[in-house]
Amino acid sequence: MTTPSPLAPARLPDLPPIAGVTLGAARCGIRYQGRRDLMVALLEPGTTVAGVFTRSLTAGAPVEWCRQCLPRGKARAIVVNSGNANVFTGRAGREVVQQTAEALAKLAGCHPREVYIASTGVIGEPPPGDKILAGLVQAAKAASATGWLEAAQAIMTTDTFPKLATARAEIDGVPVTINGFTKGSGMIAPDMATMLAYLFTDAAIPARALQELLKASNERSFNSLTIDGDTSTSDTVLLAATGAAKHKRVTRAGEPRLRDFRRALDRVMVDLAQQIARDGEGAEKFVTIEVSGAASARAARRVGLVVANSPLVKTAIAAGDANWGRLVMAVGKAGEKADRDRLAVSVGGVRIAEKGGPVPGYDEAPVARHMAGREIRIALDLGVGRGRWTVWTCDLTHRYIDINGSYRS
Amino acid sequence: MTTPSPLAPARLPDLPPIAGVTLGAARCGIRYQGRRDLMVALLEPGTTVAGVFTRSLTAGAPVEWCRQCLPRGKARAIVVNSGNANVFTGRAGREVVQQTAEALAKLAGCHPREVYIASTGVIGEPPPGDKILAGLVQAAKAASATGWLEAAQAIMTTDTFPKLATARAEIDGVPVTINGFTKGSGMIAPDMATMLAYLFTDAAIPARALQELLKASNERSFNSLTIDGDTSTSDTVLLAATGAAKHKRVTRAGEPRLRDFRRALDRVMVDLAQQIARDGEGAEKFVTIEVSGAASARAARRVGLVVANSPLVKTAIAAGDANWGRLVMAVGKAGEKADRDRLAVSVGGVRIAEKGGPVPGYDEAPVARHMAGREIRIALDLGVGRGRWTVWTCDLTHRYIDINGSYRS
Repeated sequence: MTTPSPLAPARLPDLPPIAGVTLGAARCGIRYQGRRDLMVALLEPGTTVAGVFTRSLTAGAPVEWCRQCLPRGKARAIVVNSGNANVFTGRAGREVVQQTAEALAKLAGCHPREVYIASTGVIGEPPPGDKILAGLVQAAKAASATGWLEAAQAIMTTDTFPKLATARAEIDGVPVTINGFTKGSGMIAPDMATMLAYLFTDAAIPARALQELLKASNERSFNSLTIDGDTSTSDTVLLAATGAAKHKRVTRAGEPRLRDFRRALDRVMVDLAQQIARDGEGAEKFVTIEVSGAASARAARRVGLVVANSPLVKTAIAAGDANWGRLVMAVGKAGEKADRDRLAVSVGGVRIAEKGGPVPGYDEAPVARHMAGREIRIALDLGVGRGRWTVWTCDLTHRYIDINGSYRS
Repeated sequence: MTTPSPLAPARLPDLPPIAGVTLGAARCGIRYQGRRDLMVALLEPGTTVAGVFTRSLTAGAPVEWCRQCLPRGKARAIVVNSGNANVFTGRAGREVVQQTAEALAKLAGCHPREVYIASTGVIGEPPPGDKILAGLVQAAKAASATGWLEAAQAIMTTDTFPKLATARAEIDGVPVTINGFTKGSGMIAPDMATMLAYLFTDAAIPARALQELLKASNERSFNSLTIDGDTSTSDTVLLAATGAAKHKRVTRAGEPRLRDFRRALDRVMVDLAQQIARDGEGAEKFVTIEVSGAASARAARRVGLVVANSPLVKTAIAAGDANWGRLVMAVGKAGEKADRDRLAVSVGGVRIAEKGGPVPGYDEAPVARHMAGREIRIALDLGVGRGRWTVWTCDLTHRYIDINGSYRS
């Protein structure tokens, strides 16, 4: 195991059981030896599912499979392996996906198209189908209502800590639970920056509404996160709802009685997204960028992500330098409506530039202290509208180069 | 001075005089001590001018000034200082620009709007107007027909070598010359990644046609270049044509008799753009990415630039790793039409992946030798159309972090 990120949470959360969900993990030796590298989630009949996937046009065979399953809106099993991404693997890769779905469908007593699959790891190597097929039998046999941590560990690649979150909500006064776990980009082995996230709830929500809820929360969480601007060929976020909770069945995502659920889903997904930034490759600092005064929320997010992806901004943060000139540069290149003379820049809550220039005589001491810390807060007010958005990232350090410059073999 | 980039050219080209152009440089101590940091180019009456500028929405005062001058299409003087960018400097910055233009106009005997200005260096510090005004008198006094190298040195910031290029062409059988010099992003001091380029010719070309010629060549040269995807607030490319050559006056950019001139202009600008990549911050390898088979030339360029900007691709190249999985990833995220199963990847002239997977048993030895060298050649055929483009970049090394993570003070 590698040293955990200095930004790792002090303790892992305990995830309660969710009625209708069991999870198991196995050690298959796909690439990593002696650690869990495959997880299976089994879902009770009637479970609805929603999913969002990578926008990459060179997506892997498992993503293609899941996209074909999604219109059914039903899931009975999820299987994820780490160590091999099954991307750019041609016919061999597609066959492993087919065989995996059929084998798990047999165990779960369902249609193969109710089995969701993801793979994360090296690109371009044929996946070891025999190991995966043996592993999923073992993992399904081991499945229990308390298998959350083992499942979260099994999907890790270069992550330095498992990432879990949980929240409760009420629908019509009936308590429901949302659990989730995710993986991000960690360190050492390259080609392994895929983001996967799995969310489970006992709420009873039909697939169409579930999809809307997932998409909305996904915009505010995983789509507001960037480590290096590179998009994986395998990114997958799934939300499964078993319907075991005894509230009146939901029909639409916009119903007022879902307000608490929506907030809880946001909370879990934002928590998981932030954990990914905290475990970004080589991360030494966790960075929150709040953009306000943009022409629209969409514009605010775009500006935030451009700033968060700027190598010049990220290296300055790594050095503890409140380099607002680079923030101005990054806002300028985002291509969204901005006005140099209305832009205001704050770092750690201190306004340092506004009205086209630095704030005369601003107090540098608290800003320097803030920049020396682990949690960096940047606020950019564009002064042209009312759109606002928050994005998260990490700094760009030497370890990023070490991690991604190491040879594959 | 810093150690020159390992990719610096073995010798600097000798630039011949261009009738109607004189250049001078001065040491003003704006930021750098004991080196040239201001240059003036004086242009004979009748000189036409074309310009392209940063797309940044937070551009500096000098860029705003030049944009206002351009519709006249005439230039009599250019002044550039290094060490201070005059960006985000409010009213003080605008006043220095006005004073600079007026002072140089007096010396050159022209209208202030025929004086083009650029500044490159630290953002957000008021420019030292007195030093600049004193320096431009000195530089104008020193101006000579042979001042090319000194002018190229004066605009350097973190560059490790001056960047010059020259070419000859014929218009109607009359020889004309094109000279140019540029600066890019070098090392050590941050906030100094502005790209400036100045081109001069004795050809007689009206401003409107000159602008078209410059824009077209600019697309194929400086706009096909990326170091880190960050756009400066001050990027400027100017082309001045003195009209001293005795060919029949040109009317349109598309005239067949300009073919040779267009080629020569391309040659000079591509040469200068490549020199910038060779002096990219921390560069150890010069990278050429040839994209073919795209839906359009525009799509090919976008894919090329996305690949060239990918930190995962750039760190792999730094490590000498022909990591084609990351190339596939970067093509996928570019958002242009692509097909995983038609994509072909070659490195150093060897086809290593095609038809959705690695080429079985391809010879790795020549690829490994190629990746260990200084000049990396990547070819990506998307297999969906006939669009092609070539872009240049450099690798991403520890020195980039060192350079950009150093404190400003």
